Amino acid sequence: MKLTVVSPLLGEEFADGVRKEVAQWAGPDTVIDVVKVERGVASIESEYDEALAGPGILEQVALAVERGAEGVFVTCFGDPAVHAAREIVDVPVVGGFEPAMLNALSLGESVGVITVLDNVVPMIRGLVRRYGLTDRCQSVRVVDLPVLALDAHEELLERLYTEARSVVDSGEADVIVLGCTGMIGVAAAVQARLEADGVFVPVVDPTGAAILWLESQIRLGVRPSRATYMPPPPKDRRM
Amino acid sequence: MKLTVVSPLLGEEFADGVRKEVAQWAGPDTVIDVVKVERGVASIESEYDEALAGPGILEQVALAVERGAEGVFVTCFGDPAVHAAREIVDVPVVGGFEPAMLNALSLGESVGVITVLDNVVPMIRGLVRRYGLTDRCQSVRVVDLPVLALDAHEELLERLYTEARSVVDSGEADVIVLGCTGMIGVAAAVQARLEADGVFVPVVDPTGAAILWLESQIRLGVRPSRATYMPPPPKDRRM
Amino acid sequence: MKLTVVSPLLGEEFADGVRKEVAQWAGPDTVIDVVKVERGVASIESEYDEALAGPGILEQVALAVERGAEGVFVTCFGDPAVHAAREIVDVPVVGGFEPAMLNALSLGESVGVITVLDNVVPMIRGLVRRYGLTDRCQSVRVVDLPVLALDAHEELLERLYTEARSVVDSGEADVIVLGCTGMIGVAAAVQARLEADGVFVPVVDPTGAAILWLESQIRLGVRPSRATYMPPPPKDRRM
Amino acid sequence: MKLTVVSPLLGEEFADGVRKEVAQWAGPDTVIDVVKVERGVASIESEYDEALAGPGILEQVALAVERGAEGVFVTCFGDPAVHAAREIVDVPVVGGFEPAMLNALSLGESVGVITVLDNVVPMIRGLVRRYGLTDRCQSVRVVDLPVLALDAHEELLERLYTEARSVVDSGEADVIVLGCTGMIGVAAAVQARLEADGVFVPVVDPTGAAILWLESQIRLGVRPSRATYMPPPPKDRRM
Amino acid sequence: MKLTVVSPLLGEEFADGVRKEVAQWAGPDTVIDVVKVERGVASIESEYDEALAGPGILEQVALAVERGAEGVFVTCFGDPAVHAAREIVDVPVVGGFEPAMLNALSLGESVGVITVLDNVVPMIRGLVRRYGLTDRCQSVRVVDLPVLALDAHEELLERLYTEARSVVDSGEADVIVLGCTGMIGVAAAVQARLEADGVFVPVVDPTGAAILWLESQIRLGVRPSRATYMPPPPKDRRM
Amino acid sequence: MKLTVVSPLLGEEFADGVRKEVAQWAGPDTVIDVVKVERGVASIESEYDEALAGPGILEQVALAVERGAEGVFVTCFGDPAVHAAREIVDVPVVGGFEPAMLNALSLGESVGVITVLDNVVPMIRGLVRRYGLTDRCQSVRVVDLPVLALDAHEELLERLYTEARSVVDSGEADVIVLGCTGMIGVAAAVQARLEADGVFVPVVDPTGAAILWLESQIRLGVRPSRATYMPPPPKDRRM
Repeated sequence: MKLTVVSPLLGEEFADGVRKEVAQWAGPDTVIDVVKVERGVASIESEYDEALAGPGILEQVALAVERGAEGVFVTCFGDPAVHAAREIVDVPVVGGFEPAMLNALSLGESVGVITVLDNVVPMIRGLVRRYGLTDRCQSVRVVDLPVLALDAHEELLERLYTEARSVVDSGEADVIVLGCTGMIGVAAAVQARLEADGVFVPVVDPTGAAILWLESQIRLGVRPSRATYMPPPPKDRRM
Repeated sequence: MKLTVVSPLLGEEFADGVRKEVAQWAGPDTVIDVVKVERGVASIESEYDEALAGPGILEQVALAVERGAEGVFVTCFGDPAVHAAREIVDVPVVGGFEPAMLNALSLGESVGVITVLDNVVPMIRGLVRRYGLTDRCQSVRVVDLPVLALDAHEELLERLYTEARSVVDSGEADVIVLGCTGMIGVAAAVQARLEADGVFVPVVDPTGAAILWLESQIRLGVRPSRATYMPPPPKDRRM
Repeated sequence: MKLTVVSPLLGEEFADGVRKEVAQWAGPDTVIDVVKVERGVASIESEYDEALAGPGILEQVALAVERGAEGVFVTCFGDPAVHAAREIVDVPVVGGFEPAMLNALSLGESVGVITVLDNVVPMIRGLVRRYGLTDRCQSVRVVDLPVLALDAHEELLERLYTEARSVVDSGEADVIVLGCTGMIGVAAAVQARLEADGVFVPVVDPTGAAILWLESQIRLGVRPSRATYMPPPPKDRRM
Repeated sequence: MKLTVVSPLLGEEFADGVRKEVAQWAGPDTVIDVVKVERGVASIESEYDEALAGPGILEQVALAVERGAEGVFVTCFGDPAVHAAREIVDVPVVGGFEPAMLNALSLGESVGVITVLDNVVPMIRGLVRRYGLTDRCQSVRVVDLPVLALDAHEELLERLYTEARSVVDSGEADVIVLGCTGMIGVAAAVQARLEADGVFVPVVDPTGAAILWLESQIRLGVRPSRATYMPPPPKDRRM
Repeated sequence: MKLTVVSPLLGEEFADGVRKEVAQWAGPDTVIDVVKVERGVASIESEYDEALAGPGILEQVALAVERGAEGVFVTCFGDPAVHAAREIVDVPVVGGFEPAMLNALSLGESVGVITVLDNVVPMIRGLVRRYGLTDRCQSVRVVDLPVLALDAHEELLERLYTEARSVVDSGEADVIVLGCTGMIGVAAAVQARLEADGVFVPVVDPTGAAILWLESQIRLGVRPSRATYMPPPPKDRRM
Repeated sequence: MKLTVVSPLLGEEFADGVRKEVAQWAGPDTVIDVVKVERGVASIESEYDEALAGPGILEQVALAVERGAEGVFVTCFGDPAVHAAREIVDVPVVGGFEPAMLNALSLGESVGVITVLDNVVPMIRGLVRRYGLTDRCQSVRVVDLPVLALDAHEELLERLYTEARSVVDSGEADVIVLGCTGMIGVAAAVQARLEADGVFVPVVDPTGAAILWLESQIRLGVRPSRATYMPPPPKDRRM
């Protein structure tokens, strides 16, 4: 099975981190190609960044499928250009939000998201409403670290644990979703620290959830509905 | 008062039509500048088109405000890049969806949208959920004409009337919103034909609603909240 | 354009305050007549007051339209008798709730209302549900001042600021709506104080929002749908 | 136990019909007094009628409690002035909508209302939203007979049966609520005709449901919460 | 009128307590038989307990109706096997949740549940969603006492009062529902203590609410809809 | 990876069919054990059947985990005893509803379920509300075949295609979920027939979705939250 991960960020470094990370989630028969956009933004931390990132992402998604990708993961929690991408290719496409959130729904009564900065909280609340999940997800918190500072793992881990602990103890949510695909390689550690306090609370890693979502949909033989994601009519398009 | 209308379409013709139209809605002290994007798509009829249109729209919004615009209308019913635009400027910004829909809510129990093509129906349903309006808007219909064919006014008028009649008679909705800002200069005529059948049903023109929305917000002294639309952090952004 | 504002309170003083206030919101071509009810209550601070105020309001609305009003604003945040009034006249009619709340929806992710007394909070929550806006408005606070004490501007301003600050800081809402049309002439000052703290948060004045809403609907050529607001059948009615 | 039924209609005839009807629902220890308003309207078939009926109803509710009523039923499906009444007396007060609808919720998956005229359908939909019941009640139909023509029992019965049959067969609802308290003495007959077709479908009579609701609340020792229905502050009130 | 109360617990003691309690709620013409399951669990404090209790409850419901019961109350707040029971008998069947919650909805703006242990909170939240009541019930608290310790009345009363006070003071809810049918004979006392603080807040006893609900439905001549609760097809069933 | 599938039906035949089916969905490293209940019902087609099936299912789930299962699939679309099972074991447990529905949400705007008999439609609507998915799933249809007749593949396929075609053409839903885990081995064929009509519409097989869901959760290192699914307190339990 051949998947492509599209890093929507300009920098090479993030793509490298993703490359290492996704290799760990891939099934035995899965080959994952990681590519990055050629234009867009250094990191996505606002609706503005997301809008600027769109065209570059769509280029890479189209290219990936031309090169044989059977599924595409746009590695950003805001699902940027994901619905657009489903219109132009015939394979499953996901971002970070949808697989993690839907997976989390099957793990407990209520889902809490912990993301990077206050700037993206309204965007995430908007996604929760757009996907129709308000009844199950009310809590969105932040670690107050920008995307490009997330590789300070100790600091990140500490803050994630503190917020998660508080979310669970206050009864805001029973399942934690890491709300940024740049929070790489920390979900298991946060989950372990929460469990060490006495009660198991799952922490969903959006990257792992996305890779496994694609594998599942491909193995199930499904892809996005053309009754929802119709092919865009041909017309002049200039970037 | 100085407003700018951003046409998110590449063609000059649509911008010309908009120019004539908005002049009729402007208040006595309002000066409206109509500009168009320099890159993007010929028309917006899919999430793909919308994603490609984003960067070009944001450029024009920023430019408009630099040149003194006190309010900006992105003339597309899908509200493309509108939330992103609110992050980068300090004036009211609206698209076609929000002012028309909110206005319509004050005119009757339920709102029905009549748009161009089946392709954009899921996008509109997604907007209805994102804005939290599902309880009041369930009906989305199409005239099955592409955006660039909307200047065939007779045909358009006929189809809008037929759909609107059917929406009201079936009890789907009590207020009609034209679901494309390219449906220029027909709202009053559709409304008149519906009324001639015996019962007055308002038909909301999204262009008029948007212009008047901007005028109202400027006169009220409000603009989008920075608690929602925070300024994007500085970073590398390359298109 | 000719508008009438109906003060639903018995006292002359409130009507005088409204008269000065609305003059400031009126457009250059708008003439606003302010009338008051001849029977009803001294102030509306309960569902009981609202029910008693109904017949007097409807008399004045009918009279206003007979005298040529092209739009009517019933100046109370509870929208008393507003839906009833739409059944009996052929012009736009609004109260204080609907224009302010719908306007606020376009300014941020979530809307918080600050009203007078605990007594009216359940009434406002009922309106939020009736209008289908629960997903966007959860926060309703009070300044704990009765309507007729609102002319103590300094005290009112101080309390509004304190509540608004707390609403925003706790993340309850990103946009503030003043929840009483008797809170005259303070919205801009509260907004300025909030902004002085560093982040712009819009504060919507329900009186201004209502006047501009009427102007907009009249200029758009729309009025309430007769598919919702049907003319009441003729019958014996005695007050 | 002493109950008072307030007929919100001017005519003596309706009160007489109610008198006979409620006697049949009363428990062995229940004494029911039926009174009618002294001012208001001949029948309630619009929000306008409802607003005009309010003060007269509130007078009678207050009087009834002064005279010892332990519970009050305002016999109209629109629950006119019911919430207002709860503010001014210390006993349970209900209209026709709430007891019938809540009772119906325990009888099947979805509830359908069959009311008199199209005029009141938006009012009923507004009540459904205000009470937070949209997920369980989507179907509102009419027999197209005015309130004062409801004593033509054969015609009424026939039309109720026809609509109820269609509601159930189309899957719109599994439980029927008669949406007018003037539909007296027909619920059982409609229910019997539906059952004769082969499948039992309950038909809830709003008058019976209301009387039994009051009896239940009195026997339970509960009455409306003063945290919701606070006593209106003293002030000048003139009708 | 002949009712049967099914105690879903193995112990004789609980059934004895129920026997005394329900006698106080029964109407003058009502005879109540209390039976208990022959297999199942000592108390229901988890979904696991609820699932194990199901078959034993259904046996007793069927038996009760064979013996002439005209209505059945399964005395557990989780409504265990209640919907299943409605499929197999032709009389009203209720548990503790539905009558108490629906009754409470008519007593105030928002409903708060106070139950036994954290273990059952997610189950109650699930019921709130299943019944479509989320807009009116958000608050679920616990006294942190297991079901079989509830006969320590002083301790229970104290904890219920403390939680109820806090629910009302924080604005979480305006009406209290006791969230366990094992909280016998304390509702009135909690209500009295709350009222002694100055504001009347109703406290709904689920046992009383259920008995009166059954009496009401029987007197109304309704029972669960066969369009929802269809008779299970005949087949092999072995326990 | 070691999974156990629990067939909640008494018959050996169904378990055999499941055994063949799940082998096809299993990943290369997955070993799937299929067991069946020792007491319960021949098929689950009502809430009554579901309640009777519960204890037998829970026995098998506990046994399976004792024997080393790392994940358990209770192969019934009604998710019988699934939440209860999560309380007593420390591995992921799913039924047929949740994985199929959540997967489907990522494939299109709206989800339609096609199940066996009218009897189970209210149960499925109840699940949709319990899981908080009403905004995305409104359409539930039936093929009108009992569970044990589903091996007539041609007839089943024909009826599934007819209903699915109608669901999509009427705009009720854009993604189809097979609403019975007894509909084995037909999803791909229905999907192919729909696509042959010109537009690709995914058809989700609940068995495949469930197996892959378990594999994904195990590989992600998550399992149900103990903040939701707390261990049942020890007590007397007798079946």
